[in-house]
Amino acid sequence: MSILCVGSIALDSVETPFGKAERVLGGSAIFFSASASLLTDVSVVGVVGHDYPLDQLRFLSNRGVDLSGIEREDGESFSWAGRYHSDLNTRDTLETHLGVFEEFRPKIPGEFRQSQYVFLANIDPVLQHQVLDQVDSPEVVACDTMNYWIEGKREALTDLLARVDILMLNDEEARQLAGKSNLIRASQWIQERGPEIVIIKKGEHGAILFADDWIFFVPGFPLEQVFDPTGAGDAFAGGVLGYVAQQESVAVDNLRRAMVYGSVLGSFAVEQFSIDGLKDLGEPEILARVAKLRAMTRFEVGEEIERRV
Amino acid sequence: MSILCVGSIALDSVETPFGKAERVLGGSAIFFSASASLLTDVSVVGVVGHDYPLDQLRFLSNRGVDLSGIEREDGESFSWAGRYHSDLNTRDTLETHLGVFEEFRPKIPGEFRQSQYVFLANIDPVLQHQVLDQVDSPEVVACDTMNYWIEGKREALTDLLARVDILMLNDEEARQLAGKSNLIRASQWIQERGPEIVIIKKGEHGAILFADDWIFFVPGFPLEQVFDPTGAGDAFAGGVLGYVAQQESVAVDNLRRAMVYGSVLGSFAVEQFSIDGLKDLGEPEILARVAKLRAMTRFEVGEEIERRV
Repeated sequence: MSILCVGSIALDSVETPFGKAERVLGGSAIFFSASASLLTDVSVVGVVGHDYPLDQLRFLSNRGVDLSGIEREDGESFSWAGRYHSDLNTRDTLETHLGVFEEFRPKIPGEFRQSQYVFLANIDPVLQHQVLDQVDSPEVVACDTMNYWIEGKREALTDLLARVDILMLNDEEARQLAGKSNLIRASQWIQERGPEIVIIKKGEHGAILFADDWIFFVPGFPLEQVFDPTGAGDAFAGGVLGYVAQQESVAVDNLRRAMVYGSVLGSFAVEQFSIDGLKDLGEPEILARVAKLRAMTRFEVGEEIERRV
Repeated sequence: MSILCVGSIALDSVETPFGKAERVLGGSAIFFSASASLLTDVSVVGVVGHDYPLDQLRFLSNRGVDLSGIEREDGESFSWAGRYHSDLNTRDTLETHLGVFEEFRPKIPGEFRQSQYVFLANIDPVLQHQVLDQVDSPEVVACDTMNYWIEGKREALTDLLARVDILMLNDEEARQLAGKSNLIRASQWIQERGPEIVIIKKGEHGAILFADDWIFFVPGFPLEQVFDPTGAGDAFAGGVLGYVAQQESVAVDNLRRAMVYGSVLGSFAVEQFSIDGLKDLGEPEILARVAKLRAMTRFEVGEEIERRV
């Protein structure tokens, strides 16, 4: 089943302790679709300026990503520049230039309005509302956000929660949104406002899925070298929702596996600059890491405990 | 099988956002044995001053902990005072008073020298050497340490590694000891110097076990309320080594389960001040959390992936 993804399309300039990349493909919609398209079809809605190297997105079309919802406006593309600290866990934003993104009002083409799976990548919650206003009756709406909107657009964002099935955000954002430092309580606060499922991303430490009556942990896939963490969260989301849409199922067992695909695809994303780690990737490499994650987390317990699980 | 544990025995004064405790039972040997004794027998070697409320340790004797290796010296007990910040992940040490601990030279009573399982709790590595000099030929030596010794006693500590089978330390300490920010590489550095197994503790994020050719993750057991994180690492170690000694096995599958017991016992420790969370605890409560952790981490994969695991 195809996913409709609406988000930012950017040119990123990134400095890490290991190197530098100038004006490379970036943005939440691009990282998400580069990841999700490894598992299912994706339709992208977004905006770029005259300077965006759309030809570099051809590998996405080749994978079945529909890019016809990307508008090209006269102006400069959204660009972002950042520098990561030596531990790669923190970064400074050096520059944000909104360009044509400033006036972006998502227009969902007619053929995408029936989408059953929708990913609202991290953009202004007011625009996320506009997307949902144009989609008929999606089965699963997943949504990402960030501290900037939690601070600046709290009302639009909390209103949006009632329309969202799966909220994905990082631990600090969850605490900030809910005003609760404990993650179980923060998730409960969020769940009470709409999303049945809250997925809290913890970077290298993995992610936790909170549902009504169950919890699932997935560790971050361990890597000897993290090259550039940019886009890890969107690639994770692409793995999660990509697997859900591929299997057309939000059953508990399927969501568990989806979390594992999220962790695996996030791990490929951070091994290279931009979306390069997700570019030349096939099923065997993905399945190999899923198998490794399984080996790293499984344990057997006796019958006495198994009965209680 | 019984574990010999040598470490500090302290009186802790702790302030958290939720309350205050004055001169309560603490120290690495006490947290470790309060935890490990839920799974197997323990013998403790350490020192206290005239002011230590040894009667409060009776619940340990009742559980089969041999306290005859605790020397009582004329002087004040080791005491520590700390205050946790609101997120409970960081703390300030307000006071450290070494007291009789300053002159502590571990003397291992004859009947403990045949111990097959030894836990060198976090004390000066020079003293940890002295312990091993007095033990005949232990099957498993597990060891904890901290930044203070990594900085101040690096040579004694790296020498000690050659005598250790399982090194347990937190992520920052592993990075500091190995001089490598990547945890896989830091573990490899440590393994090259002796320990076959390195267990890296990550607080609320759980722990990772690195062996030669396998890795195992256990998440932190999720709690709605963490009351006092003091001693969590020692309680975790008590769960890990306690289970290993109970089962008399360092087989891979057993070590995996041991990590789960570590996480579970660590979770009980942080729910109350001092060792109170480990005091009135029985097998049913422990097994219930083991079962919950299993439910939170298990996922099924298809035959195609299972074959690769």
